Amino acid sequence: MKDKVLTEPNCAANQPEMGLEDIREKVMHLFSLSDESIEAERERERLVGIVAHNFLRASHVSTELELRALTEHFVDTRIPTDPCDIDHYFEYLSSNVVAHSIRTSSPRFIGHMTSSLPYFVRPLGKLLTTLNQNVVKVETAKSLSPYERQTLAMMHRLIFNFPDDFYVRHTQHSESTLGMITSGGTLANITALWCARNACFAPSGDFRGVEEEGLPAALQFYGASEAVVIGSEMLHYSFDKSAGLLGIGTRNLKKVRTDERRRIDLKALRETMEECRARNQRIIALVAIAGATETGTIDPLSEMADIAEEYGVHFHVDAAWGGALLFSEKHRPKLKGIERADSVTIDAHKQLYAPMGLGMIMLRRPQLAKVIEKQARYVVRPGSFDLGRRTLEGSRPGMSLFLHAALHIIGRKGYEFLIDEGISKTFYMAEAIRRRPEFAFVVEPEINILTYRYLPEAYREKAADGELTKADNEAINHANRALQRAQRREGRNFVSRTIVETTCEGETCPAVVLRAVLANPLTTEADIDAVLEDQVKIAANLFTNTAARARAV
Amino acid sequence: MKDKVLTEPNCAANQPEMGLEDIREKVMHLFSLSDESIEAERERERLVGIVAHNFLRASHVSTELELRALTEHFVDTRIPTDPCDIDHYFEYLSSNVVAHSIRTSSPRFIGHMTSSLPYFVRPLGKLLTTLNQNVVKVETAKSLSPYERQTLAMMHRLIFNFPDDFYVRHTQHSESTLGMITSGGTLANITALWCARNACFAPSGDFRGVEEEGLPAALQFYGASEAVVIGSEMLHYSFDKSAGLLGIGTRNLKKVRTDERRRIDLKALRETMEECRARNQRIIALVAIAGATETGTIDPLSEMADIAEEYGVHFHVDAAWGGALLFSEKHRPKLKGIERADSVTIDAHKQLYAPMGLGMIMLRRPQLAKVIEKQARYVVRPGSFDLGRRTLEGSRPGMSLFLHAALHIIGRKGYEFLIDEGISKTFYMAEAIRRRPEFAFVVEPEINILTYRYLPEAYREKAADGELTKADNEAINHANRALQRAQRREGRNFVSRTIVETTCEGETCPAVVLRAVLANPLTTEADIDAVLEDQVKIAANLFTNTAARARAV
Repeated sequence: MKDKVLTEPNCAANQPEMGLEDIREKVMHLFSLSDESIEAERERERLVGIVAHNFLRASHVSTELELRALTEHFVDTRIPTDPCDIDHYFEYLSSNVVAHSIRTSSPRFIGHMTSSLPYFVRPLGKLLTTLNQNVVKVETAKSLSPYERQTLAMMHRLIFNFPDDFYVRHTQHSESTLGMITSGGTLANITALWCARNACFAPSGDFRGVEEEGLPAALQFYGASEAVVIGSEMLHYSFDKSAGLLGIGTRNLKKVRTDERRRIDLKALRETMEECRARNQRIIALVAIAGATETGTIDPLSEMADIAEEYGVHFHVDAAWGGALLFSEKHRPKLKGIERADSVTIDAHKQLYAPMGLGMIMLRRPQLAKVIEKQARYVVRPGSFDLGRRTLEGSRPGMSLFLHAALHIIGRKGYEFLIDEGISKTFYMAEAIRRRPEFAFVVEPEINILTYRYLPEAYREKAADGELTKADNEAINHANRALQRAQRREGRNFVSRTIVETTCEGETCPAVVLRAVLANPLTTEADIDAVLEDQVKIAANLFTNTAARARAV
Repeated sequence: MKDKVLTEPNCAANQPEMGLEDIREKVMHLFSLSDESIEAERERERLVGIVAHNFLRASHVSTELELRALTEHFVDTRIPTDPCDIDHYFEYLSSNVVAHSIRTSSPRFIGHMTSSLPYFVRPLGKLLTTLNQNVVKVETAKSLSPYERQTLAMMHRLIFNFPDDFYVRHTQHSESTLGMITSGGTLANITALWCARNACFAPSGDFRGVEEEGLPAALQFYGASEAVVIGSEMLHYSFDKSAGLLGIGTRNLKKVRTDERRRIDLKALRETMEECRARNQRIIALVAIAGATETGTIDPLSEMADIAEEYGVHFHVDAAWGGALLFSEKHRPKLKGIERADSVTIDAHKQLYAPMGLGMIMLRRPQLAKVIEKQARYVVRPGSFDLGRRTLEGSRPGMSLFLHAALHIIGRKGYEFLIDEGISKTFYMAEAIRRRPEFAFVVEPEINILTYRYLPEAYREKAADGELTKADNEAINHANRALQRAQRREGRNFVSRTIVETTCEGETCPAVVLRAVLANPLTTEADIDAVLEDQVKIAANLFTNTAARARAV
């Protein structure tokens, strides 16, 4: 795509300064619900509709304009004195912001967890903004409070599948919390460990609990040397945030080594649990991953549930990505054991196809969240129906709108279709990679995330024979970094990159790999082939020519 | 408003179960960008447009349907097997969810901080959902990353007003953080204290900092008995969350008493600071309030900045509500001293008229946030431009769209008009309350939040003479609780209620008060009179008649 010329909103250009009456009139027109204002809104809506559809239907993933050049158009930090002309601003938005946004919905944007969305979320986006409910309390969210509870109960049932009477009792009971909507998986994971920490260092005798007395006092009362959280080295970085934030310390997040498929090594896990016990460290939670961000790996959930049970430790499953596999008859068995978790993170803005900003934490026991309950004098009073009594966030929008709608309009079988398709496309891509001599796997794919790397010609034979040296590996890493950057810059296709461990000269060494995420229902096999062909072509340009030129010199 | 009849979405009613091909077709139609799908989207958009405007223009604040009765319509927790008909679902949404939503935009909904919004946010709500950018990283938010940085720099300038070259250097510099967008004020306050805690217990010598080693180790290394945070008893409950979450413990959130205007008592504050010093407690932060949630109170910011400086303590200002006063020449002096804060919380979804879900924390020093930096192998790599390197949240939507747009389309003078109007209406309401014998103040209003209480006739004289007993006070509290609930239930008007301290029989006792928030530009003086008249009428029905009936028996 050609890069459009950028213009500043430049609102005040050639205008005399406005008087108070002009200001009043301009501002009141924005808030008014007069026929005239509603007509003005409809007109802008029509414009946005066109901009939106042009954006969605464009063929590129991103513009070629370099980030550094782009930033130069966002440097004026003075707030305009007078109100800008709204059409002027919308034009600016269209040419500066929309034009250079990433087309995350593109069938050839297969590098991150953001995909195309079902069309009904767009009118719902407008509805959400119109309602402008604040779900922290019933007084600003009368119907959305029970509606959100219902949505969470539906998800609870999907995971834990308790008998009917459980849901009759708890779904709309103000003292029960089946889960919370959060702004994303990070807050869900933090909330899970917050609950786990508080339950672990609960009030007892004279001790009023860690939430009230703090972590140093808690360790002292419970006679523990430290508080730790245990998971694998594939844990999402939100667990580092959690450990830091909660006062535990990131060094007390014990990252257990993984096997060749990047699943937690159960023997090493047991050793770590024993070690913590021997060192008098209190284990706040054992965390399993269901769909690792980098490789899609699913930890052995049942075995980990056993271990958590044996040690009497809170069992959390980070299923931010993989939780949606529950919809698929075929793939659900991969999550066996998730129903034994104390808490589960799922992101609706990932494989439930809701827009960005919709995470969830689900709790097996409806009373667990009591350990984080807060109250105030003007809202979230004890006993109230206010959802804000037991959430990390305070004021927040009614995002459950997107999820409740999707659960109905897509339905269980619709989700099953989406999950099955994504995984089957991944295996198509895996085959396509195997067929091409230019690529190799470091880790075999498990679900719909796939990592692989490009091998410059000189290394293919050695790689096949498992004889890459550390220096070879470094050269291959360099090539993959350059390849991913070049493809991103050219903007036709996109995969991301990350680092996984591999072996060189009998030792562990880091492999830079390309990472594909196959979750967009619009992505076809032809798109997958095109992305790979593009990589082969870019690599040829980058490396072969350089090498050829080098030889020619 | 009459309560509409509720219907279940009841998707599967009378439909044979769908086969895989039907499912595929249904689902693909939702994601497709074919002309047919786009036409379908436009049609739903038109419908939502009508529902939205009918909702906005309705005359009630809420329906009379009791919450308990409403919850009974949100109890089916089975996820439908087959995809629902989309129109069926939208109809259900309209009659069940929209119909019973709170009309927070009503000119007579003057009880919470949610107001009517300028119309342009509604098309932008759709645009945001369409773009579906993830601002955690540039790879999913190319233009929105520098755009968000620019927006934050504009707000930084409004508060701290550094010279031009400061903004030239820092606005688009990947190693500088002028602020962060958060999902709301709660996360902004938590982030502020997270930064403050980490800066307070920074790495030193062998000690690798509290973030890595945890709070117990930090106290030990620094030789402190405890970590504390200090503010007034009017602190928002998000500070209780912060203290609990960060491992400090809520008991170590020291709440200093306030004066008769609910401003922190500076003498008591100094005593508390000294006490903490004497007890070897490490003060992580001193928190001032600029617009207390319950009463609108603004703490003496300059004096508190002096004290923070003297003690070498992080100075945080919670200006979630009051920060917008900076736009007003007339009211800006009330915030004198805010420019000396180390961190400031402002909610754009409050007095900046953005939709729910848009908070901010602003940092005076661009390097402070380095203490919370995290990294991963697939995003937020060291040195990258990714905004997610230094945020509490991970994936998040491009909410800055609403704020950047509003700063331009409303402009500095537009905001000044809105702030001045809100405060002047508050003083109109205060006068109207003084004129009516039925009401009395406990705290005098300072900005545009106002608390007052209804006095049943029997207590008016005693109240005027300052001779209310504790029992009288209890009876008055009971009346105000009942009055607020009845007005809320009837749904024509709305104010909230809270508890502030008053004096009875020479002692402190809790006064239940009605709470009005005047921030809706559509609210007129006639609306204010109507809300008060309604209260007088409701009270007459509730109390006088009951009393009369009681006498008649």
